[in-house]
Amino acid sequence: MTQRFCVLTYVYLIAIAAEAMSGALAAGRRNMDMFGVGLIAFLTALGGGTVRDILLGNFPVTWTQHPAYIYLTICAGLFTMLIARFMHHLHRLFLLLDAMGLIAFTVIGCNVALQLDYSLPVVVMAGITTGIFGGILRDILCNRTPLVLCQELYASVSLLVALLYLGLRHLGVDEDINLLASFAAGLSLRLAAIHWSWSLPVFSYEPGRWDS
Amino acid sequence: MTQRFCVLTYVYLIAIAAEAMSGALAAGRRNMDMFGVGLIAFLTALGGGTVRDILLGNFPVTWTQHPAYIYLTICAGLFTMLIARFMHHLHRLFLLLDAMGLIAFTVIGCNVALQLDYSLPVVVMAGITTGIFGGILRDILCNRTPLVLCQELYASVSLLVALLYLGLRHLGVDEDINLLASFAAGLSLRLAAIHWSWSLPVFSYEPGRWDS
Amino acid sequence: MTQRFCVLTYVYLIAIAAEAMSGALAAGRRNMDMFGVGLIAFLTALGGGTVRDILLGNFPVTWTQHPAYIYLTICAGLFTMLIARFMHHLHRLFLLLDAMGLIAFTVIGCNVALQLDYSLPVVVMAGITTGIFGGILRDILCNRTPLVLCQELYASVSLLVALLYLGLRHLGVDEDINLLASFAAGLSLRLAAIHWSWSLPVFSYEPGRWDS
Repeated sequence: MTQRFCVLTYVYLIAIAAEAMSGALAAGRRNMDMFGVGLIAFLTALGGGTVRDILLGNFPVTWTQHPAYIYLTICAGLFTMLIARFMHHLHRLFLLLDAMGLIAFTVIGCNVALQLDYSLPVVVMAGITTGIFGGILRDILCNRTPLVLCQELYASVSLLVALLYLGLRHLGVDEDINLLASFAAGLSLRLAAIHWSWSLPVFSYEPGRWDS
Repeated sequence: MTQRFCVLTYVYLIAIAAEAMSGALAAGRRNMDMFGVGLIAFLTALGGGTVRDILLGNFPVTWTQHPAYIYLTICAGLFTMLIARFMHHLHRLFLLLDAMGLIAFTVIGCNVALQLDYSLPVVVMAGITTGIFGGILRDILCNRTPLVLCQELYASVSLLVALLYLGLRHLGVDEDINLLASFAAGLSLRLAAIHWSWSLPVFSYEPGRWDS
Repeated sequence: MTQRFCVLTYVYLIAIAAEAMSGALAAGRRNMDMFGVGLIAFLTALGGGTVRDILLGNFPVTWTQHPAYIYLTICAGLFTMLIARFMHHLHRLFLLLDAMGLIAFTVIGCNVALQLDYSLPVVVMAGITTGIFGGILRDILCNRTPLVLCQELYASVSLLVALLYLGLRHLGVDEDINLLASFAAGLSLRLAAIHWSWSLPVFSYEPGRWDS
């Protein structure tokens, strides 16, 4: 129990650092200053959980009780400014960490909603929200259309992980095995999607005036 | 009483489906994938009520207690992908449903705030928020300036409906008659505004450096 | 005590009016209608405090208990439409009021979080959020990258004021003297930054595909 908790916590800390770095890079594309980089890093890493907590009425919001998360994400963001020129060497590692973050966030989000006794569809929404809303906030603040809603399988990995995790949980599968299975399935799917550019069907609509 | 409630519920369900479809079309303009279409549809339809509930501290947020709303909006969004090519034939119907949604959302938003004993200006704000914030979230996520703040009378219809509904309520008018009057006035105004391109005075400002 | 409260309240009222005007001007750059101008003015002025209250779980949200703030900000926004053509004459005054607003919002935000017994890092975040999030919401709604995260020292002034105010408070400095010192330091820094175009180091990052 304690050991599993430890592993999940380490994965979570690595995940928020990785998300913070992705936020910092997006801020750099908009020529933001150090403060902007730190803020976007923070929001990308912890924004998903914040939106989830607010939607579920789960106060106090998680990160307000863990100041270390604030420091970690801001430092990871600022550190990215220093190593940005080398980051293309870390491309694959970074994608792996980002995928781990997506899955860890999703599972954690589901658990928060489960503890608050929300119904299953809301639990799934809470998992997805935790998984992808940090990236959505990052893209809104950087004035671009959210990437996670356009490109190769990303948000849908979060959905599938949530469904798998909750399904196995419902079947009474041991939590450790469930977590392993969810991570294995989610990581495989995400990395395969990146490698072979798998994506969901895209909806391209040419506007008329009336679809305001 | 029960009958009125039924009618309002049907109007509400039609309204969230119509709003979901408008969200899906906006997502299609940004070439989003199926997941993005579903998410934007959901946010457009239920985002206004969500923002209202959070602003008013009205937890749990309404849709978390009605999973059917989640399914309905996402299905309406995905269904739009199938029928998008035919939607210009449904142009007028769609605008009518959208206007009904605007009014239904506004009245419902006012009632939520009234039940929480907020003061009148806050009740009006709650009505408007419910009416227009779904569309604002849709446009933020689709990276465009919110249409409802630019084009022919839309948000202002929500304001006028809120004022009319609360005014008649204050005068002790029967709730059924009040609802009928609010819908009649709101629909007439919105459809007339579309037909004759009525709009509020527009503020066009050429920037200097100092207006940061 | 009462006198200090009065002064802070006046500064606050001037500040929200100034922020509302900056919101109205941004709305004018997007050719919004009167309703849009009023809404953006309201959100720019009161959005920072709203986000803070929601993050801290501080319900009811402040402005819902002070309808006068709603009227003041909307009126200031609409008034801006009338005087926009003369505003370049008021350039310096406007920047001064905006800087006063930034500092007043920051100090007020810190105090709200202090009263709710949040830890120091969260208090600082609450101060900054109150100070800058109105401007961030304004820029999101006007579909541009948030200025406060890019240009000369602005958000960092909020951070420094929060740290100074909390530091002096920790040292037991009299509240009046603390407020005076915080305003003097913050205003000097902000105005110097505008005058000499001081800014934080900017992070410019040329994207690769992998930083999604």
